[in-house]
Order: sequence, then C-alpha cells, then structure tokens
Amino acid sequence: MSRFEPIAKLLAKDRKGHTLPRELYVSEEAHQFDTQVMLKSVWLYACTVAHVKNPSDYFVFELANNSIIIVRGRDMQVRAFWNSCRHRGAKICLEQKGRAPRLMCPYHQWTYGLDGALLAARSMADDFDKKDHGLNPVAVENVGGLIFICMADNPPPIDRVKADIAEQIAVYDLEKLKVVVQDDYIEDANWKLVMENNRECYHCDVGHPELISVLGTYGFGKGLPEDGEGDVVDDRDYDALVAAKREHWRSLGIDHDLIEFPDGWWHRVARLALANGAVTQSIDGKLACKKLIGPFTEPETSSLSVWTQPNSWHHFCCDHVVTFSLTPIAADRTLLRTSWLVHEDAVEGVDYDLDHIAALWRATNTQDGHFSAINHQGIANDGYQQGRYAVEEKLVEDFKDFYVDRAKAALKDAQA
Amino acid sequence: MSRFEPIAKLLAKDRKGHTLPRELYVSEEAHQFDTQVMLKSVWLYACTVAHVKNPSDYFVFELANNSIIIVRGRDMQVRAFWNSCRHRGAKICLEQKGRAPRLMCPYHQWTYGLDGALLAARSMADDFDKKDHGLNPVAVENVGGLIFICMADNPPPIDRVKADIAEQIAVYDLEKLKVVVQDDYIEDANWKLVMENNRECYHCDVGHPELISVLGTYGFGKGLPEDGEGDVVDDRDYDALVAAKREHWRSLGIDHDLIEFPDGWWHRVARLALANGAVTQSIDGKLACKKLIGPFTEPETSSLSVWTQPNSWHHFCCDHVVTFSLTPIAADRTLLRTSWLVHEDAVEGVDYDLDHIAALWRATNTQDGHFSAINHQGIANDGYQQGRYAVEEKLVEDFKDFYVDRAKAALKDAQA
Amino acid sequence: MSRFEPIAKLLAKDRKGHTLPRELYVSEEAHQFDTQVMLKSVWLYACTVAHVKNPSDYFVFELANNSIIIVRGRDMQVRAFWNSCRHRGAKICLEQKGRAPRLMCPYHQWTYGLDGALLAARSMADDFDKKDHGLNPVAVENVGGLIFICMADNPPPIDRVKADIAEQIAVYDLEKLKVVVQDDYIEDANWKLVMENNRECYHCDVGHPELISVLGTYGFGKGLPEDGEGDVVDDRDYDALVAAKREHWRSLGIDHDLIEFPDGWWHRVARLALANGAVTQSIDGKLACKKLIGPFTEPETSSLSVWTQPNSWHHFCCDHVVTFSLTPIAADRTLLRTSWLVHEDAVEGVDYDLDHIAALWRATNTQDGHFSAINHQGIANDGYQQGRYAVEEKLVEDFKDFYVDRAKAALKDAQA
Repeated sequence: MSRFEPIAKLLAKDRKGHTLPRELYVSEEAHQFDTQVMLKSVWLYACTVAHVKNPSDYFVFELANNSIIIVRGRDMQVRAFWNSCRHRGAKICLEQKGRAPRLMCPYHQWTYGLDGALLAARSMADDFDKKDHGLNPVAVENVGGLIFICMADNPPPIDRVKADIAEQIAVYDLEKLKVVVQDDYIEDANWKLVMENNRECYHCDVGHPELISVLGTYGFGKGLPEDGEGDVVDDRDYDALVAAKREHWRSLGIDHDLIEFPDGWWHRVARLALANGAVTQSIDGKLACKKLIGPFTEPETSSLSVWTQPNSWHHFCCDHVVTFSLTPIAADRTLLRTSWLVHEDAVEGVDYDLDHIAALWRATNTQDGHFSAINHQGIANDGYQQGRYAVEEKLVEDFKDFYVDRAKAALKDAQA
Repeated sequence: MSRFEPIAKLLAKDRKGHTLPRELYVSEEAHQFDTQVMLKSVWLYACTVAHVKNPSDYFVFELANNSIIIVRGRDMQVRAFWNSCRHRGAKICLEQKGRAPRLMCPYHQWTYGLDGALLAARSMADDFDKKDHGLNPVAVENVGGLIFICMADNPPPIDRVKADIAEQIAVYDLEKLKVVVQDDYIEDANWKLVMENNRECYHCDVGHPELISVLGTYGFGKGLPEDGEGDVVDDRDYDALVAAKREHWRSLGIDHDLIEFPDGWWHRVARLALANGAVTQSIDGKLACKKLIGPFTEPETSSLSVWTQPNSWHHFCCDHVVTFSLTPIAADRTLLRTSWLVHEDAVEGVDYDLDHIAALWRATNTQDGHFSAINHQGIANDGYQQGRYAVEEKLVEDFKDFYVDRAKAALKDAQA
Repeated sequence: MSRFEPIAKLLAKDRKGHTLPRELYVSEEAHQFDTQVMLKSVWLYACTVAHVKNPSDYFVFELANNSIIIVRGRDMQVRAFWNSCRHRGAKICLEQKGRAPRLMCPYHQWTYGLDGALLAARSMADDFDKKDHGLNPVAVENVGGLIFICMADNPPPIDRVKADIAEQIAVYDLEKLKVVVQDDYIEDANWKLVMENNRECYHCDVGHPELISVLGTYGFGKGLPEDGEGDVVDDRDYDALVAAKREHWRSLGIDHDLIEFPDGWWHRVARLALANGAVTQSIDGKLACKKLIGPFTEPETSSLSVWTQPNSWHHFCCDHVVTFSLTPIAADRTLLRTSWLVHEDAVEGVDYDLDHIAALWRATNTQDGHFSAINHQGIANDGYQQGRYAVEEKLVEDFKDFYVDRAKAALKDAQA
C-alpha cells in the first residue's frame, strides 16, 4: 500500500509531548488516510439508542464519502448497514433520519427488510438469488445506550469500554430518553484539531466565559485532581469539594472512581462537581428540564462525563444528557453533531425550553469552532513547527498518542 | 503513460453484466482519464446544424477544460477549431453561442477567418509567418444534420453511423429547423451514471409519471419488442401495435428496421409508437408546434429516436425535434444540454409555446438528475460493490461495454 | 525531490520568445511548485513602510497557505515573522492589518513582543525555556520604503535593487506618506498570467481606453524608446518629448537613465512622460491630491515607475503613489493588491477624494482581470500551444525568462 508511504514518514516524526507534523493535520493525503484507513480501523460513536427510539426508525451516520444506515428492527435490535443498494449502488436512505417500515431504494425500488435481507427486485435473470444480495452489514455495538459502529472487517476489542461505560451511565437509562434538539455544526478545521480542542480547558478561562461559570475548568484536563499539576491551591479545594460530595454520591449509587483512558483502551469516565451552585450544564446553571432522569429526585450539583477516542464526548446531568460526535468531511472541515436528550415523558414548553437547553453548548461550540479554525490556518503556514503541549493539555496528548498508535497499526495492517 | 496505470487495473475488474468498479465512477483519476484520454478517442455529439444556422454563427462545445468553436462558414460548411488564440492562448469566443464575421481574439485582436486562417496580427517579428499560425482544427462530421466532433488526431470510423442515421433522419431536414429553447442543466453525478440512467426505463414506472403517460416505457430498453424479455404480455401487445402501424409508416416512407448498436459501432435508431394517443413528446401528448415538419401533413402517433455512444440521444417527432448531449464538467458533475427545434417558419405564440414544448423533458430531466445524483452518492460509499444489471437494463450494459472497450483501446494507444 | 520531476520536464520545454507550456500556467502541480519552491526562493514585495506607519502597526502578507506578520517595532524597525504560534501553531494575527502592542495568540494567550520574543506562556513544564520559543523570523528588507520579504533560509542578493530603487524613489519619501485606499482584487487566472498582462501594453489601445488617455502606451513595453521597434514614428516623437523634458527633470533632481532589468537582477525603473497634459495617473489626468509630495511644488507632467520581478509594480506621481502586488491564491486565482498613498498631511475631502484617486486603476484592474481570466481559460484548453510574443511584448519575455531561470535554480537547490 505504497500510496500511504508519505503518511508513514510523517508518523515517524511524531514527538512525545508535541503536536503532530503539519501535513498530518492539513494535507489531503492525511484526510484520505484518516477516512479510508485509520478511522475505519477503530470504533466510532454514531448516536444513542434514543436516536432510533422506535422500530423502523433509522439514523444515517456519514464519514467523508461513507454512509451507514443505523436502524431499529421490530425486535428492538439496532443494526447497521452500508447505505448503498446492491443493484446499481444508489443511496437508499436520503434523509439524515426518518422512519421506514422497509428500506426501499428510491431508484429502482429494490426493497430490503430492517434486517437487511433483499425482499424484492424486479426483472432479474433466472440465476439471480436474492439471498446473495442483502444489504452489507457494518459492525455495531450498544454501549449502555451509546451506539458505536466499526467499518473494519475485524473490529478491535470493545468489551472493557462497554463494561466501564455501561456500568456508570446505566442509571440514566438512554432507552427512556428522547432526542429534542440536534445541531449539525461544521467547523473549518481538521477533525484532529477539533478533538484536541475538546481535550483541554487551557483555553477556557478566556475562551469560554459561559462554560466556566457553570462547570469551572476542572476535570476537562485543566488542574486535574489526579495529576497534582497546574493551579495547586485550587486543586486542593476541588479535591476537598469532591471528597465531601462523594458521600452524597454513594448514597445515590452514582459514586465511582475516575476511569482515565486505561492502557490500550480509549475511554474516560468522570463525575464532575459543577461550579457556582449549578445543577446542570445550562447557560444559567438552572434546571434545563423539570422532569428529572435516572435516580434523581432532587437537582444534583454534579454531572457525569464520558470521553471516547477518537470522536466523542458526553455529559449526563440530572435533567438532560448531551452527546457530541465528530466526523471529518474534508481535510479542513469537520462535522460536530450535538444532541440534547431529556426524559421521554417531558413536555416541551412545560418541562423544558429548546433554546434554554441548548444555549450553553451552542455558545461553547461556536467559540471552539473559531479556535479550531485559526489553529488549522496557522498550522497550514510553512512557519509552523511542532509545538509543545502545556501541562494542562495532558488529555490532548492522550488523544494524539492514541491517534498515532492506531494510525501506525492501521497502516501496518493495510500493508500486510 | 504510467499515470493511468490505476485505470488499467480498474478496467480489468469489469464484470460482464455488472456495474463498474467504484473508482471508475467517482474518482478524480477516472475523470482525468475520461476527459483526457477516453472521450478524446471517440466521436462526440456537439450540436445540430440548426445551432449554427447561418454563416458566421458559432457554437462553443466544451468538455472539462477543453473548448471548441463550431462555426458555419460563408460557404455553409461547418468547421471546428480549438478555442485558443495562437498568440498567447487566450480564449477567443467567450459566449456559448453567437455570430462573428471574423474570429477575433479579445485580448490583442489577432483575427482569424471563419476557415481558421490568421488574417491579422500586429507587431510581430519579421520572420513571423501568419500561414503557420491559423487556428488549430478539430475533426468534425455532419451526420444528417447532427454535428459530431473528435479531438483525436486519427478519429475512429464514422461512416456506417453516418449512413444509418442520415438515412432515417433526412426526412426531418435539420437544415430547415431552428433551435427555440436550449436548457443547460448540471447534474451532480458522473457522466457515465447519467448515461446509464438514460439507457433504461427500469426506473420509469415510479420515476417518470409524465414521460410514460406519453411514451409508454417501450423502446427505452424496457420490454424491448426484439428481446422478448420483461413483461411478455405487454410486449406482444406492443409487437402487434407496431406491426399494424408499419404499413402506415411505409406509406409515409418512414418505416425502417430497428438498428441496434451494430457490432463495433455506436448507434441505435428506432421508431417508437407513442402511448395513449399522443402525437408528440409533449407533456399532454398534444402537438407542441402546429407547423409540422418533414413528410408529415397529419399528426403522427410515432416518433423516431436515435441514441449514440457515448454522449447523446435524440427524438424526432412530427412537430419538433429534441436533442440531448452530455459532457463531464467534474468527476461528479455533468452538463446535460437539451435543445428543442421546430420548423424554421413556425412562429412563437402562434404555432408553439416555449413552456409547453419543453415541459415534458424538463420534468424528466429533473427527475433523472435526482436519480443520477443518489446513484453517484451511493457508489462513493465504501459499502458499494459492483451490482448486477436487470434484464431490462440491457442497453445500460451496451453503454458500459462500449465504455470499457474504448477505454481499454484508448489506454493502449496512449501507452504506445 | 522527485515530486517536482514533472516541473523540471516542463521547464525544459521553455522556448525563447514563446509562452510557457500549458501545465506551468494551469496545473495544480505548478501552483504547488510556485508557492512552495520558486516563490520562496526570491524576494517578494509585500507593502510599503506607510502600511505599518506607527510602532505596533502590523500588516499580514499571505501567499497560498503562508501567512507572515510584518510589524513595526517601537524602535521603528520593520520586522517579519511567520504568523503561527509556537505553542500549537494557531494563527496569531487574524486581521489583514491592525495595531497590537504585543502579539498575543488568541487561542491560549501566549504573548510575544514586537521583536518576536516569547514573553508569556502559562502552565509549561519546568524544562520549557521561553528563549527557545520566539516567533520564527522571515527575512525582510526596506528598499527605500518598499518592504520586501523572502521566505528562503538564504535569500538571494538584493543590494543593487535596493540601491537603484532607493536612489530614485527617495524624493517621494514613503515614510511621510499614508495609505488612503487599499483594494484587494481577486483575478481568476494564474499569477504568471497576471504578471504577463502587466508587462505589456500591446493590449492597451483596445483594452484600456482610460489608461492610455493619461499615460499613452509608451514605457509599458510598447514602443519602448530604447528598442526602436514598434510604431517608429511615434517613438521618435516620444524620444524628442522626453529629451525636451529631461532638462526640466534635471532641474528638479529627478532625472535618471532608464534602469532596464540589469543582467541577473530583477528591477526596472523609468520616468515616463504623461500624455494629453495629464499631471498625474488619475481618471481625468488632473491632480488626485492637492497636497503635493516629494520635491514638487508645481504639478508635474511625468511619473516614475518601478517594476520588480516577480510580483510588483509602482507608480510615483507628484501628488500620490500607487503600488501593486500579486500573490497566488490557487492555480487559477491571484490576489492583486493595489494601495494608494498620499502625503500624510493631506486631508480627505479637502485635498483628495477617494473615488477620484482610485478610479483610473480600478477601471484598469478590472479590465486586466478579464484579460487574464480569458487567457487562463484558453491556455487550459488542449488546443493551446506555446505562442510567440510580439515585439512589443519584450518585458513579458523578461518576466518569463526570469521565472524560468529562478524556477530552474530553485529546483536544483531543492534537489540538492
């Protein structure tokens, strides 16, 4: 696979604690490699079970030229198929989401069941066998209600991620939630820069005034209680605060130790104490939905966060859940998809207001879009050289190291 | 010519009765190959003589980066030249069509005759000879009034195409017609998919309600009278219908046997019986122009259709003619140019109405643009695999086989 | 550096007195070569000292993906730095021009002095040394007030250019001028075609009615007094006119012999007699600013012009100065930046009117944009072949020869 030889050379220039070589961030070759090799070798977060809540609901997940149908069967199982008809290849599901009792190709009406089996195809020769022409499946896993897909023929292990995440988010019971807002926001930056941006709060003090008023900057890689670096005095305060709260969390059954990207794995799970009396991740810290979810009967001053490599993060509050996924569109364009979920029985206008629930992360997403864009532009400059991460950017390093490791492995597999 | 080595490998993956490998449809490399090699090795339909009706009329035919001037001389001959000044290369004719007594470059006013000879060039050195600097000619053939061009130095044979088509369309006398509408419509699909779409009516029942009410679906590759496949009962009906009509056609001098892409050639000619009492290809089946053309003195319930590989089709009705040409603009964009012609003596508002005459094919083109676009999108998906054509898609196979044959031959020539 | 092997082959096809091979004008590969190799090996005009008139003023010069900050220090020195933060590479100056007491990265607030030194960076590990992380400098030269930059590690000589130009433009004292209008105009053509267009007035008679009414067509490569070619009678007239004026110029201390791209150098300097009684390069030939500059106390019927390879030209009038720079944006897009300068004490609405001062070159730029675009389109055509320059196009040849020489040298250096 000599066409990715330049990528191998670039990966060899990776330096511990430093940003990647320019071409890995900005070149068309790296975009081709990422979307055709690297990102096809790993599990990607696609959506929640609430996005395909009922039988026949489908959700289309796209990455560069690839399109995958995620669909709920009548047996309530969630399955995934390539969104390409087995006849002449036309795209079958044209909307980003919808409901379809059958998957029918709009070009010549070839018709498939929700399990992918070809049910009808007119005018085919006698030796044509429908059994050989079902929709091609894609690997899919339900991680406590978070749906991950993998485009590889032999997907990597996911069992520990599944166990660790499912254990902690189970109380929020995603099957009982509904999606009330979904924002598709395109950032003018390479997806890896959007990820790096997500993995540090070194830019939060100046860059995200709304966010830090509710969350503080702890737990987003800045002044981690566990690493003892950064602003030491505040860390002690935060440690004390968390220690005091854990007793309360234990009483609710939601206290767990931090899970911090275990060796060889790709997930982080942390309960965070909110700041300034906030009881949820809303623009004013006040409840975003009156109908509480999970085990909560009272507003709760903490939230649970889940991060996965290489493309998602999620926040579980006592009244709503917000999930984020990233997918590259082009070398310098990335889709950030944000979904807000509330209890399925909550009523719009009574229990929640869409503008209020979405305001905090909309503001934050817009700010981050700007930062990622100027990061991309500056890296494209010949004057760029690999720079050193700050102490507070340890989770950025974790992402970058994951990327380099998986990229090298995927390249080796592709060449084998 | 090692740069097209990947194309040779893709062509080797061609499977009888199946669609092409993905990259041949969607890759930039295939677009470069098609526009620089394959399509330059064959004859392409450009326009009719009616598009350059009078001396000094020119019509610019463009394919990707290439631009060719087709111009009528004072001797009524139609000639073709590359649209690039021999001085510093500027484009000479900037409008898609127009009239020019001389071809004058707008940059420095070098001036050429309608035969391409350089007539004037200021301030050139003494050893400059105008005779050596005429416009570079492009091969051109007048096929019964249909103008074909070929960008190759040694164009392939065209004599049988010319004889077969000219014989049947002569009665419509294109020199006596005028172009009254021309639509340039860009489809978001590779040109080969737009061609494949044109070569079958397997999608017509659901996809083209307007079209089938007037034409039925016969003769467009669906339930061909000749192949005995498809909806057999209807075919028998259609066979009987045609048999009954041929006596009438003989009396008009317009009865001919079907010409069905003869071995090694690239044309199909068929007279089709219209459906539901239609007398022309209009949105309501009623006459689109009161002034009849050719040998017709009464409305006629049939039309003559001509298809050529790789880029055109044409329908000749008793009251008007409609011609279609395809040219690739980008790997995923194709220009579909549709022209409607009527008798030169017909008067707008009296004999014909522009909206009425164009309505049927405008609706059909728009529907086909959608189908080709979703076909392209689905093929770009990694889940695509080469699919099997239906029995009714035999003419699609004919196109695909032509493409593969000519592509292989052109590649061999390019490498020689 | 085998990736530019195709460029070496194209350069070998250069023919004396002829335009370049097509791909050098229109291909993406040539654009990559020009912006990554050729244009990085030479000095490029960026702006004047008046564009960064005061301490803390910065001006961002961009070429393809590259962005350079040109900034005036408190010591009045003009310096240049790559516009990319040494932390994670973000772009620092986001506006095209502005004022900044410090250069602070908007992403994480790393802060640099106007001399590029890193002053502040939070949360870095103990072994991080700010001294090693200043902004990367770019070579810069002040040529009598014209700022040139060079992105090469070892810039080529500039001393003679500096001496020759500075001597003649010193009287216009750019430090005492201010920029009153700046137009950024994007032409749809390769930058080399925009340059070729600038280096001849063979197209002026028909193409630039406004311009020739004020400047005539002399001295822009058409009917050069020195070469005795072209319209000989008019040349004699012009020679006589200039001879008569030189006595007057001597009295003003502004008489110099023509400097005509000395061997191995890349500058031309000429005083031109204006036409039809014009006293400046304005749309009506009348003063564009009442406040005269330099040694002029009376309106003066000549102007001084400076041309440099490969990207600038400048006209110095008794009442204003106009400067032009070119930078490639894409293979077929070029930024033409035009700036108009007047005496720093001149008052808008009293001494000058912005529309009046800019009208002549705005009209001319628009006309040239059209010519360059159709030149590019025609060259992209397969029918293009290398064409012969006219006698009046000698300065175009000079540019083309410079381009080929430097391109070959840069290629050799890149391969070494």
